[in-house]
Amino acid sequence: MYIGIDIGGMSIKAGVVNENGDILAKHAVTTPKNDNDAFLNAMLESIDKAVEEAGIQKSEIKAVGIGNPGVVDRDKGILSEATNIGFSNVPAREFLQKHLGNIPVLVENDANCAALGEYYKAESSRNFIFITLGTGVGGGIIINGKLYLGTNGAAGELGHIVTHTNGRPCGCGRRGCWETYASVTGLIETTKEHRDEIKSLSPDEEISGRTVFDLARKGDKDAERIRDMWIEEIAIGIVDIVNIFQPDQILIGGAISKEGDTILLPVIDYVNKNAFCAEILSKPKIEMSKIGGDAGIIGAALLYSNLAERE
Amino acid sequence: MYIGIDIGGMSIKAGVVNENGDILAKHAVTTPKNDNDAFLNAMLESIDKAVEEAGIQKSEIKAVGIGNPGVVDRDKGILSEATNIGFSNVPAREFLQKHLGNIPVLVENDANCAALGEYYKAESSRNFIFITLGTGVGGGIIINGKLYLGTNGAAGELGHIVTHTNGRPCGCGRRGCWETYASVTGLIETTKEHRDEIKSLSPDEEISGRTVFDLARKGDKDAERIRDMWIEEIAIGIVDIVNIFQPDQILIGGAISKEGDTILLPVIDYVNKNAFCAEILSKPKIEMSKIGGDAGIIGAALLYSNLAERE
Repeated sequence: MYIGIDIGGMSIKAGVVNENGDILAKHAVTTPKNDNDAFLNAMLESIDKAVEEAGIQKSEIKAVGIGNPGVVDRDKGILSEATNIGFSNVPAREFLQKHLGNIPVLVENDANCAALGEYYKAESSRNFIFITLGTGVGGGIIINGKLYLGTNGAAGELGHIVTHTNGRPCGCGRRGCWETYASVTGLIETTKEHRDEIKSLSPDEEISGRTVFDLARKGDKDAERIRDMWIEEIAIGIVDIVNIFQPDQILIGGAISKEGDTILLPVIDYVNKNAFCAEILSKPKIEMSKIGGDAGIIGAALLYSNLAERE
Repeated sequence: MYIGIDIGGMSIKAGVVNENGDILAKHAVTTPKNDNDAFLNAMLESIDKAVEEAGIQKSEIKAVGIGNPGVVDRDKGILSEATNIGFSNVPAREFLQKHLGNIPVLVENDANCAALGEYYKAESSRNFIFITLGTGVGGGIIINGKLYLGTNGAAGELGHIVTHTNGRPCGCGRRGCWETYASVTGLIETTKEHRDEIKSLSPDEEISGRTVFDLARKGDKDAERIRDMWIEEIAIGIVDIVNIFQPDQILIGGAISKEGDTILLPVIDYVNKNAFCAEILSKPKIEMSKIGGDAGIIGAALLYSNLAERE
């Protein structure tokens, strides 16, 4: 039995997870801010409650994995920082081993945990790419069944490949990164650039990531066109990923996954037409995330067994 | 002892290679065109001569690897096609096993063989990317010491990631692929687009991949500027590769590697400034290929031992 912890700005969620990635019980507590000790105690409380609800003994816990929305020190088991929680250098491994015994405690960034969770719940895939479309574009890479971290541990910044040389400024310092066009932030910017063309949009209405989707559903052809421009930006990067990795599966998660087939079907169509040697090579299965919020817990829980396979 | 065969449009080169990737002997024969049987006999001749020159017994050969400039059927050991040689469905494994005994005969595309050869001769790298800049831009990916092929065997088309959305048409059917800007073909096109700006260029001079390099060396500042624009196109894609893979080494090969530091130093500088979290993350070593023409032989020879590690 494994414990997976998903740290968020609002709550710390702990789950008891079996080796198949099934969550037996989970418990959430409010995330204490700007206080390392309060944070550690809250995390332990979430574990205790989840263990209690699952009806297992603490001695059955084989390992704990923690997904942090920020930088981690994997070697030392430290949560180095998480800007929106306000902690720094939290000695998670040391603290949890004191309370749970000398079991492995692994720390990882939350995007990688989500990718691993999605991977374990996907069907029989070996080379698997997870893409999150939200404020930015994030990614996680599974190669031959193992989380790929790169030599310095920072691989998988799929949002930071340039699709528009000299394009929009990106937070990473470059211009034209995929995420400046394919993220929800990118969609909002594109919508703003074209707002005068959307006839059914009232001049004082605030633009959100939903605007063109909602108006297109009501029959606004210009909104539909702008929505489709955005979907093509997503598809361009996904073809890049296909041409690089030729994975067997690509899963799309994040805030927009609820739009489902409206995004998915044109993306698949674009990939089928534009991937390298599209007419002869097999294509990856491309799907929307199905497990959503629980992927982080599941992936964190299974970090240890994935790492063991990796060594 | 292994045999590596590098098939080219001009010659078939066979090498006897030890497990460290050292070539003990090699022999080249002219490539017969449009004749499967003549091709197979020539390939066998190149092996026989290389074995003779190396002074080993045929019984010492553990495996043969063949790098084909075209499509291969790895399962069946067939060279499916090579457009510029004019053969199709060459049963290389069946033929060689008849003459050399029941040893493994592996077929692979030549770019992957070159990547693997460069990898084995590089210093202690685990995650390694090989990029060839020539007529196009090719790539090879080594993950955790193993050639990464992707699920359908076609991974690593690094030239076919879009850096200029809606840019130059690419042979793959898309627009704006990295190779349409960063290849030597791309350099020639960029030079032609800007030829009026190059003062020291006579109007009837034919443009080649060397033009701006040669004129820049003679002090033409406009040629230098165009050369540097091209080098930046290379660097943009290399930063993408860094952000995706965070490898420990990137090696650049192909026709332009003889320009050495003129290309390499500005690329390294650009990566150091533009890679994701450039100020805190370690960077891959970026170098020019050192073994050049022999990489294909070495990589083909070591396919079998790399595959054995992979299983």
